[in-house]
Amino acid sequence: MASIFAKIVAGDIPSYKIYEDEKTYAFLDIHPEVRGHVLVIPKIEVDKIYELPDEDYVALWQSVKKIAKHMEEVLGARVIMKVVGTDVPHAHVHLTPLDENWEYGKTLELSEAEFKEIQEKLAM
Amino acid sequence: MASIFAKIVAGDIPSYKIYEDEKTYAFLDIHPEVRGHVLVIPKIEVDKIYELPDEDYVALWQSVKKIAKHMEEVLGARVIMKVVGTDVPHAHVHLTPLDENWEYGKTLELSEAEFKEIQEKLAM
Repeated sequence: MASIFAKIVAGDIPSYKIYEDEKTYAFLDIHPEVRGHVLVIPKIEVDKIYELPDEDYVALWQSVKKIAKHMEEVLGARVIMKVVGTDVPHAHVHLTPLDENWEYGKTLELSEAEFKEIQEKLAM
Repeated sequence: MASIFAKIVAGDIPSYKIYEDEKTYAFLDIHPEVRGHVLVIPKIEVDKIYELPDEDYVALWQSVKKIAKHMEEVLGARVIMKVVGTDVPHAHVHLTPLDENWEYGKTLELSEAEFKEIQEKLAM
């Protein structure tokens, strides 16, 4: 069965997209830990990131590099990476700018206008 | 000035090494969040991981993949990845097995014998 992320890639579920190429897709996390919380995913559906075929695995980390650099330029903050993946069984990399307001376990409630504003800033 | 991690790679500071190749080095974190907390680093010294030259960046993530798979085989737990890097200005990837005893902000005190036992299990 297609994961929620596969449906996002296919366009069946809307997302605040910020980047896409042949093998990867990036969009805003709708339960952000901080403003500018991005998820980068491979287009193929694999649960654990280290189970990806080499080609997709390298493409994913190359996209992460590009996006993280761009985020730092735009947001002016160091970018943190996390791969946990116990929530959605489709490998994903969390990118979050270092933010002094971050608190463990806390997520923000943002309006659609706020998401769109962040999307516009980060879109590549 | 050489970071503590550059000194570890050079062998000037001892470490519980578990993997090494031309471009990368992996060893046990001496302030582990859980048993089997590994750091994977590039041999060249760069603060932010996304500032690494492509060749070293890809080599680092390739080592992470190999090591994470090996950790999962040996420890029987999904492996989590984190790149924060505000402590030591030498890019490093944290690999930790998913562990129900993990607590945010907590680190374990292990004896030398315990570190050696984990090192023997994880060494590749």
